[in-house]
Amino acid sequence: MAVFSRFSLEITPHLGRYKNMRTDLERFFSPRAIAIIGASQDLTTISGQPLKHLTSHGYKGKIYPVNPRYQDIAGIKCYAALADLPEAPDLVLILVNASRVIDMLRQCGAKGVPYVIIFSSGFSEVGGSGTDLQRQLADVAREFNIGVIGPNCQGMINVADSVFAGFGSVFHTDYEPGVVSMVSQSGGFGFSVMNLSSKDGGLKFRQMVTTGNEIGVSTLDFIQYYIHDPKTEIIVAYLEGAKDAWRLPEIGDKALAAGKPVMVWKVGNTEQGQKAAASHTANLGGAMALYQAAFRQKGIIQVEDIQDVVDYGRAFRHGRLPAGNRVAIITISGGAGILMTDECIARGMQLAQLAPETVAKLREFVPSYGSLGNPVDVTAAIFNDLTLINRTLQAINDDPGVDCIAMINASLQGEIAIRVATEIVAVAQKTTKPIFISWSARDAVATEAYALLDAARLPHYKSPVRCGRAMAAVSWYAEAKRRNAAQAGEQALTIVNNEIKQTLVKSTGDVSEHAAKRVLAAYGIAVTREELAASGSEALAIAQRIGYPLAIKVQSPDISHKTEARAVRLGIASDEELASAYDEVLSNARAYKKDARIEGVLVQEMIKDGVEAILGVTNDPLFGPAVMFGLGGIFAEVLKDVAFRLAPVTPAMAREMIAEIKGYPLLMGARGRAPADVDALADAIVRLSALAVDLKDHVAELDINPLFVFERGKGVKAADALIRPKV
Amino acid sequence: MAVFSRFSLEITPHLGRYKNMRTDLERFFSPRAIAIIGASQDLTTISGQPLKHLTSHGYKGKIYPVNPRYQDIAGIKCYAALADLPEAPDLVLILVNASRVIDMLRQCGAKGVPYVIIFSSGFSEVGGSGTDLQRQLADVAREFNIGVIGPNCQGMINVADSVFAGFGSVFHTDYEPGVVSMVSQSGGFGFSVMNLSSKDGGLKFRQMVTTGNEIGVSTLDFIQYYIHDPKTEIIVAYLEGAKDAWRLPEIGDKALAAGKPVMVWKVGNTEQGQKAAASHTANLGGAMALYQAAFRQKGIIQVEDIQDVVDYGRAFRHGRLPAGNRVAIITISGGAGILMTDECIARGMQLAQLAPETVAKLREFVPSYGSLGNPVDVTAAIFNDLTLINRTLQAINDDPGVDCIAMINASLQGEIAIRVATEIVAVAQKTTKPIFISWSARDAVATEAYALLDAARLPHYKSPVRCGRAMAAVSWYAEAKRRNAAQAGEQALTIVNNEIKQTLVKSTGDVSEHAAKRVLAAYGIAVTREELAASGSEALAIAQRIGYPLAIKVQSPDISHKTEARAVRLGIASDEELASAYDEVLSNARAYKKDARIEGVLVQEMIKDGVEAILGVTNDPLFGPAVMFGLGGIFAEVLKDVAFRLAPVTPAMAREMIAEIKGYPLLMGARGRAPADVDALADAIVRLSALAVDLKDHVAELDINPLFVFERGKGVKAADALIRPKV
Repeated sequence: MAVFSRFSLEITPHLGRYKNMRTDLERFFSPRAIAIIGASQDLTTISGQPLKHLTSHGYKGKIYPVNPRYQDIAGIKCYAALADLPEAPDLVLILVNASRVIDMLRQCGAKGVPYVIIFSSGFSEVGGSGTDLQRQLADVAREFNIGVIGPNCQGMINVADSVFAGFGSVFHTDYEPGVVSMVSQSGGFGFSVMNLSSKDGGLKFRQMVTTGNEIGVSTLDFIQYYIHDPKTEIIVAYLEGAKDAWRLPEIGDKALAAGKPVMVWKVGNTEQGQKAAASHTANLGGAMALYQAAFRQKGIIQVEDIQDVVDYGRAFRHGRLPAGNRVAIITISGGAGILMTDECIARGMQLAQLAPETVAKLREFVPSYGSLGNPVDVTAAIFNDLTLINRTLQAINDDPGVDCIAMINASLQGEIAIRVATEIVAVAQKTTKPIFISWSARDAVATEAYALLDAARLPHYKSPVRCGRAMAAVSWYAEAKRRNAAQAGEQALTIVNNEIKQTLVKSTGDVSEHAAKRVLAAYGIAVTREELAASGSEALAIAQRIGYPLAIKVQSPDISHKTEARAVRLGIASDEELASAYDEVLSNARAYKKDARIEGVLVQEMIKDGVEAILGVTNDPLFGPAVMFGLGGIFAEVLKDVAFRLAPVTPAMAREMIAEIKGYPLLMGARGRAPADVDALADAIVRLSALAVDLKDHVAELDINPLFVFERGKGVKAADALIRPKV
Repeated sequence: MAVFSRFSLEITPHLGRYKNMRTDLERFFSPRAIAIIGASQDLTTISGQPLKHLTSHGYKGKIYPVNPRYQDIAGIKCYAALADLPEAPDLVLILVNASRVIDMLRQCGAKGVPYVIIFSSGFSEVGGSGTDLQRQLADVAREFNIGVIGPNCQGMINVADSVFAGFGSVFHTDYEPGVVSMVSQSGGFGFSVMNLSSKDGGLKFRQMVTTGNEIGVSTLDFIQYYIHDPKTEIIVAYLEGAKDAWRLPEIGDKALAAGKPVMVWKVGNTEQGQKAAASHTANLGGAMALYQAAFRQKGIIQVEDIQDVVDYGRAFRHGRLPAGNRVAIITISGGAGILMTDECIARGMQLAQLAPETVAKLREFVPSYGSLGNPVDVTAAIFNDLTLINRTLQAINDDPGVDCIAMINASLQGEIAIRVATEIVAVAQKTTKPIFISWSARDAVATEAYALLDAARLPHYKSPVRCGRAMAAVSWYAEAKRRNAAQAGEQALTIVNNEIKQTLVKSTGDVSEHAAKRVLAAYGIAVTREELAASGSEALAIAQRIGYPLAIKVQSPDISHKTEARAVRLGIASDEELASAYDEVLSNARAYKKDARIEGVLVQEMIKDGVEAILGVTNDPLFGPAVMFGLGGIFAEVLKDVAFRLAPVTPAMAREMIAEIKGYPLLMGARGRAPADVDALADAIVRLSALAVDLKDHVAELDINPLFVFERGKGVKAADALIRPKV
């Protein structure tokens, strides 16, 4: 139970946040006084540790232990109740049994405490009565407008101000303050990340908080705070799931604008993927697809291990972003150059094509057995002539076709390492292009060299693979930043149609094809020519207007799977066929579902040619409306080859979605086809996004399957559609 | 030049190896005497370093510096020429300029030296005359039957016997001997891997050799030697490309039989992928696909970073292989449990379903706020009751549905860490199931605990991700081993058909459809009903026999692309249509290529229904014959969704290939289709493999496109085929 149910039991949006909830988190991170309810005299226990850690790390504010059983703890006066304190502390730590937490939180409210960390476990993570208890806790927090962190968490460390308000192994250690701030839903593992990153990885942290079950202040609240915190430069989050996930795009925008990279370690994906498997579109995506859509749209960098946090963090500490994705590699080892090339290409970077002038310059001093291509192999000749480093770096840096430089130093160590580092730093200080260094010497034998690079904030890595990964992450981020800036100037289409909303409010079941297509048409998405017939003779009259061949389909809000019900006939070529088919599909429909409400029989043009696409809207409880695109048939259903974006989707984003899927070449004219009308397809996606936004309170899901995409210039046409209204 | 051309300039098989080449590599690794040709008195230079490293690390054999300019070097008598030596040393190191290497190698031959390391650069890696020089060098080596290592390499370290025969930064360091032996084509980077793995990663090495351009002893020779070396337990290779790649399956078999895991770091993949883009099948695969086929077939573990070498190496040092892929996770941190779950699932493991008895046992002592599912969350309650560890591990170990156990200890440190480690070791010693530990405490604060685990060979990792990866690698290896053992009992089909060989010997161009299908039929692969017509009236007569509808196709060894030549007509329904179409396709063919040799017009049944598949044979210059399978149309061409195996392919391997592609559900009946005849498809693959082996000297490439796969029980049929003979 404890592992997976922290969030899955309550995915209702807004549950965790209450109106006007405190977000002046500076008081939380730098409280002037802290009370500890349930403090123990045994300083090794969970309830004893916070007082010990606060004092041993030199917390400068006042500490008020609260426990009716003691007069004092470790020489600090202990109070019987919070009410007895001479002031309202900025922060209260609650460490009592779950059953007593509500009462204690109420006392905090009465005293006017702004922030409370609830460490206690036994809430929604255990399910059943724990979930009820957590709901009551949230009510109290809301009633008194307390900024609650937790429950079921391990507290906070503000390294910069020496506030160690929590428990756990890593609290025993001292840390040097840095510019990385982190928020983690996992207590134990989150603190491990901080501990290993800063002590072993050298990536220094500023603030670190664990949020547990998040009935109050959420992961996204903390990210937002860190964006505003002038001393935080890099933000890290360890995320199982965000109950306020719909805020991700806005927060991502703010982080991009502030120039603060946000690294997110999103976990629980396999389990998440199983959730909400109810409907077709959701099935293809699952929540993880929406997280990834948000991350991609807003340049939020995904990390997958502690090493990524360290490696990417060092890269971002460099402070330089490449103007494009063209990398030049300089190496003294051929083998490592190959490895770096593989890694860069695999991660979406390009090898820069060096200008002829650059190659001519290099030819003057790179040995003949070296390489003037990219990678540039200056070889071990640097042992004889160290100016090679400087001259090569300078020449590469001057090349306008190079956005980013990777320098591979193999295992150079000792004196020569110091001299090489000095050369690199000298060039780096005269240039603005990012320089990344792969250097495989152990710390013990290149201590001074590495210190020189660190002082100049030049990121260095023990292997070309790690160097390439980090460089590609920065390059990806820089590209997302450019793209977001470009798209900010592009207005998303807005359409308001209240008439359609009225219609949808009235629908009591799935909105069947004909009605669903009228909704699409209202938002400017082309649909097949079709009319609803109430009788065989009406059908014949419609056939006259549309012309053969035709398809007919029984329309019923009670029959979503028309084909399964054999309520569909395709390729009808004559009046005779139509007449008999009309009766047949109706009787099949009634046989399939006796009481089905029949709206009529849809008489519809048959579509030939065109690539079959699928468009969908999923109105996610956490993210709100999102749009999906894929190619029809096996592409979407078997290969799950689909693209998601959170609405609103701009035209540029729609074109990205189209180009993103693996089947894209099919639209571009693979296998002898004519190129498809990608512009019309993008327009349909944008219009569907406008629909999704306008109808977000009325549509739970929408599928267009198939949408025919015709040859370039000939548009698209929705051939079938289904809307599941929001109830 | 230097980066990519080491191998691409000469991919001719066998070039690197000569008949009866020495492979008694024990003399190489443990030479009784070593001569250093070109030894320098400046011990910091490349040619000075080997003597220094040999003496400083305590080499126990004799050292003979050879350089006419010196009387002695560092107090060791120096000889003017190799001929002057009192004996033939087991190993000679050549460190002179490239132009003088051939002469020196000849002197080695004359002296009867068995092994020579050529450090010098300036051979095929610089192209042009360097390539010629290398060829001459290989001739001399062959003439005297010398086991040459290099040229363009950095030498060898035999840690076990203190033989440091090479140069570079990492030679300055002492190493403790271990059971890992490595061979690397990259000198600089290869030694970095050894250095970081053993000094920082704690994975101790036994022997390490760099092979450079490999004119003599190859990477695969060394792997083979390590398989026989009784003191090597784990083998690592850093591979840019193997000129004797066809030996991989056999060597893989031997390694599996010897129980020695082989980890290969294959690099240069992006450049490799560009090679051999000439033909269709090769284009889909490229050499990397064949390397990966070989690795998969023979349980060769791919690594992608130094950390993988260390992490997987520790896992294999454990010495226990799981009987299946069902893992049970025990954790004291919920968050880390989620992460481990994600990693295991993503890497092909399954979470074990715990038996009711196991859950009942756990319920007796796991706290109510913990979790009895899998992951089992014993929570921080272990702080109060350490026996929880022992009891939980024991209960999980006793569950027959568990193949492998992962234990997550968060950041436990100090005294409790020692006690937890002791508990784990105690259980591990009583059981045989593999136990992997994720433990995020820094080395400095859990030194003793880690030492306890190390002493018991229990692999531990700083993050659940690394632990999961390593565990999945071992599980994958164990599965490959089981699979290989099972397949060893399964005979691959062998067909010998000398008549067909005779036919192919005579072909002067591509073998066109009808003839190619007769070849297929000779190996038992079903083909369309068809006959070759020499005239319009013959065509009409054939039509009577086969029945309409029909397809007709002009057959010519000079027209491979019949459709492009408009020499094909499909869906012919009557005698009239056939008569006019016959003339039309012939005149189109002549218009397309005036002098084309026309063999006739193929009159063929039209195939309806069935899933279109593609089968192919590529007779790779390095690997020999390999078989490809994919689904037709966009699957193979656009999505590159194909599976490769090196021939011979057994029935079980064929079924694996079929199940491996992403489009597999289509064959299983996705989207309302009837399930396809997968058995017949597998049989066709096996027969094609038999053909590929039998005709390996005659067929360069073969494509069956499409092969129709009918409903279950109804077989397959090749509808078009093309053979490119080997010339």
